[in-house]
Amino acid sequence: MSRWEPDAEGRLIKAAITLFDRQGYDVTTVAQIAEAAGLTKRTFFRYFSDKREVLFNGSAELAQRLVTGIAAAPADAGAMAAVRAGLEEVATLFADRHPFARVRSQIVAANPELQERELIKLQSLAGAVKTALVDRGVPENTAILAGQAGVTVFHVAFAQWVAQDDPTALGRLMDQSLDELRSVTAG
Amino acid sequence: MSRWEPDAEGRLIKAAITLFDRQGYDVTTVAQIAEAAGLTKRTFFRYFSDKREVLFNGSAELAQRLVTGIAAAPADAGAMAAVRAGLEEVATLFADRHPFARVRSQIVAANPELQERELIKLQSLAGAVKTALVDRGVPENTAILAGQAGVTVFHVAFAQWVAQDDPTALGRLMDQSLDELRSVTAG
Repeated sequence: MSRWEPDAEGRLIKAAITLFDRQGYDVTTVAQIAEAAGLTKRTFFRYFSDKREVLFNGSAELAQRLVTGIAAAPADAGAMAAVRAGLEEVATLFADRHPFARVRSQIVAANPELQERELIKLQSLAGAVKTALVDRGVPENTAILAGQAGVTVFHVAFAQWVAQDDPTALGRLMDQSLDELRSVTAG
Repeated sequence: MSRWEPDAEGRLIKAAITLFDRQGYDVTTVAQIAEAAGLTKRTFFRYFSDKREVLFNGSAELAQRLVTGIAAAPADAGAMAAVRAGLEEVATLFADRHPFARVRSQIVAANPELQERELIKLQSLAGAVKTALVDRGVPENTAILAGQAGVTVFHVAFAQWVAQDDPTALGRLMDQSLDELRSVTAG
């Protein structure tokens, strides 16, 4: 069984999410996920260190998109305008992941250990944003605050996005959330 | 040894911080902390579930001060003005804890598990702020954003406070940090 499996990773993610959703995250085993995907446990472990990582697999890609978008913003864009450019890249990435994101959010919300993991990933995202801004010449402290603000905007808008039905709404919801953060801090 | 020990809790915290600082957090045992405080392990466990909790003991008081300050803000204060009133209460609480906070910050910064714990406590603080704002009639989403903004301001200013020498500077640093967050999000 060392032959190449077409889209093994995608099949494993789909099988895992279906099982988590149907029978619960805690009771689902790696063996069940592999079997449902028509693959071996060995293949599973070639892609994921454990079943938890199936849920957090996308976070590296998310960080990379965000950072790429920030780096590509016009040279004269301010810190928050650059973060906004990064968030637009993220909205594009997620546009076709709405069904997955909805199920995933329910699983995470029901499991304190996964919520903690999510928090840590979000914090590491804020750190990546900060570094990307410092690389653009933004002062350290401004970069920290803009990174936190960006992650807050993403987090709040993401929760709204999975709670509603339009898969394309994430960009608009992030814009609204940023506007609201601006008026909250100004008030 | 069931008699009352004057300020046993304070003596245990002081002994723990001294040992963590001198010999490292990982190698310090509860038995050593109790001995250094002139108390028994049994007394230690009357106050703390484990050595980690010595470092996070103040977080309930912090949350309570913040929430009390928010609730006591004038009825016509906006969400962020109420959060600012809460942060002023917190600055008062911490004024005489500067030496403890400096050592504690170094210990947490050197230990990923403690950093994760810190993150989770900060997130729960943001939740407490949100609830306190909702209780004042602030709309849910505004309350979430103001809670996150308040915790960001606290977190950034706290890191600056422990890195400098003036124990009374926390309030001023939080004001500066809030001003900067305002100008970052407006930019």
